Amino acid sequence: MRAAFMYSAGDVRIEQIPDPVIERPTDAVVRVVRSCICGSDLHPYHSRTENDARTTMGHEFVGVVEDIGAEVATVRTGDFVIAPFAWSDGTCEFCLAGLQTSCVHGGFWNDARHGVLGGQAEAVRVPLADGTLFAVPGIAEDSPLVPSLLTLSDVYGTGWHAARTAGVGAGDTVVVIGDGAVGLLAVLSARQLGADQIILMGRHEVRTDLGRRFGATDVVADRGAEGIAQVRELTPGGLGAAKVLEAVGHMPAYRQAVGVLRPGGTISRVGVPQYEEAPVGFRSLFGKNATLTGGPAPVRAYIEELLPAVLSGEVDPGLVFDRTVTLDEVPRGYREMDERTALKVLVTP
Amino acid sequence: MRAAFMYSAGDVRIEQIPDPVIERPTDAVVRVVRSCICGSDLHPYHSRTENDARTTMGHEFVGVVEDIGAEVATVRTGDFVIAPFAWSDGTCEFCLAGLQTSCVHGGFWNDARHGVLGGQAEAVRVPLADGTLFAVPGIAEDSPLVPSLLTLSDVYGTGWHAARTAGVGAGDTVVVIGDGAVGLLAVLSARQLGADQIILMGRHEVRTDLGRRFGATDVVADRGAEGIAQVRELTPGGLGAAKVLEAVGHMPAYRQAVGVLRPGGTISRVGVPQYEEAPVGFRSLFGKNATLTGGPAPVRAYIEELLPAVLSGEVDPGLVFDRTVTLDEVPRGYREMDERTALKVLVTP
Repeated sequence: MRAAFMYSAGDVRIEQIPDPVIERPTDAVVRVVRSCICGSDLHPYHSRTENDARTTMGHEFVGVVEDIGAEVATVRTGDFVIAPFAWSDGTCEFCLAGLQTSCVHGGFWNDARHGVLGGQAEAVRVPLADGTLFAVPGIAEDSPLVPSLLTLSDVYGTGWHAARTAGVGAGDTVVVIGDGAVGLLAVLSARQLGADQIILMGRHEVRTDLGRRFGATDVVADRGAEGIAQVRELTPGGLGAAKVLEAVGHMPAYRQAVGVLRPGGTISRVGVPQYEEAPVGFRSLFGKNATLTGGPAPVRAYIEELLPAVLSGEVDPGLVFDRTVTLDEVPRGYREMDERTALKVLVTP
Repeated sequence: MRAAFMYSAGDVRIEQIPDPVIERPTDAVVRVVRSCICGSDLHPYHSRTENDARTTMGHEFVGVVEDIGAEVATVRTGDFVIAPFAWSDGTCEFCLAGLQTSCVHGGFWNDARHGVLGGQAEAVRVPLADGTLFAVPGIAEDSPLVPSLLTLSDVYGTGWHAARTAGVGAGDTVVVIGDGAVGLLAVLSARQLGADQIILMGRHEVRTDLGRRFGATDVVADRGAEGIAQVRELTPGGLGAAKVLEAVGHMPAYRQAVGVLRPGGTISRVGVPQYEEAPVGFRSLFGKNATLTGGPAPVRAYIEELLPAVLSGEVDPGLVFDRTVTLDEVPRGYREMDERTALKVLVTP
């Protein structure tokens, strides 16, 4: 079968590899119906060097179960399934607590140590299939709902995690930093959770227009001190927002989050931090009793909760896909996302 | 009157200054019955230079109201009062939300910009007396309850803030880092909130013995990797504690907090950070969905809640005072706390 591999920065290739097979009794093999390219895929697309071994790519996919191991009980051959961006056993204390991204037996896609490959491929061996996969009955492969279902594998659940861990509720003022797919779906999530005022910080008008469609009440395009001042101006009393959702992962976004935060407020980060150290002392977080939370979203925990509104068409998170490429065209998909000419790229087989 | 002044590091002097008077109609003048020296007073005691202007000291005191301004309504001359370590109007949105340390009109003691002096003195002008002071009826100046009431001005409320913001509740495993007065009272607070297992990290046996009396179930004296390993060993499944209370403020304590934290857990910091940057990236906080919270405790908000158990003698937080000096002896009190021969020093007039 074909699968996408990343070599050094900017170098993505489609290559032939053996078809996946059941290796353990808890495995399933899933034929990929749709996958996609993630904003976080751009981090290695920028940072990898010639010294890095090639790696498979892709951690978001929906597909059809082609084969299951002897111990798999909750999905069957032929099921349409959503694969979250982390695989998990579904039975450990963290999975039971809804924190599948900390599963004691789980892991992430594209991890050569576990022989686990990626979703930008024709098929994938899924470890711990019972805990990992979520079957959705009655979905045809060409259903118009497929793009929205695909967002439940990462970006929608990640935006939801930001809003949930920040404690967004009725009447809140919320700031969302970042107009990528996660930021836009954090806007949608904040609206679903009842926020009154949702200020989206982003400077790509096509994206922020979609953000308004998802529920943003204000858009601030400026960054840095000017952007912070404009956001604060919009908040009650000019004192900042009590809930800030950071969906970028770079240090300037972190600083913006701190800058617009109201005393006693919460910053939830879901953009994978591209830094290890950050300001957290008296002048940034401590002095105003700020709370910093978030992390890799346990999207598996949220599928059940988010699915009904997707199936009913009440929400359409799949609108974040504005470009479609075939698997063979995936290298072009990376280029277009990197150049910001595409917001999020859907991949067909 | 006499008041303590700090010059450069290690140089504390008692000097004569004019008696405080009412300057604004919202002021009160309080004669100090007991004040004390705080672990956080040791930070300037180490770091100040010859270039710093002298400053008054002390931010914890109880006393008797000697005079009030024309607009003061909630305290009267002769009242025994507790003065929290922050002064606040009691009416702004942050005060009403119980975050008096972010009061829009408030501030901290020993702030020359506001003409506000400190509690290590014979008397203090208290701004915004209605919002700041808490009157306790029926307390004689020589009541044995006075030391415990004095802890409500800072260290007890600060330990309580750590436990509260970490969300400590029934059955929890809690790690407390630091065996100073705040750490020990964080232990007491965690016990009051129902924690089952309270692991105290500290290496001064007299102090950790008091920690056991306050409710610590385990004591770990080692620090660094060894201390982290020992704490984890004690926690369920060896996976760390979900609630970690950091009552020191130095970077090694922060690293210990990260090291013993269970995935999905919360670190609450109440030790004033002596750093601005700290690890918060994938390897420290983000990857395990850790929450970082805490800050300057709004102790004013907690007095009403904590007072009954103090008045009934159910708890005795005043046990943290193991040395008493007169105001004239305050320089010696600093030395003894700095040399760790005293845990916390009570100051009589």
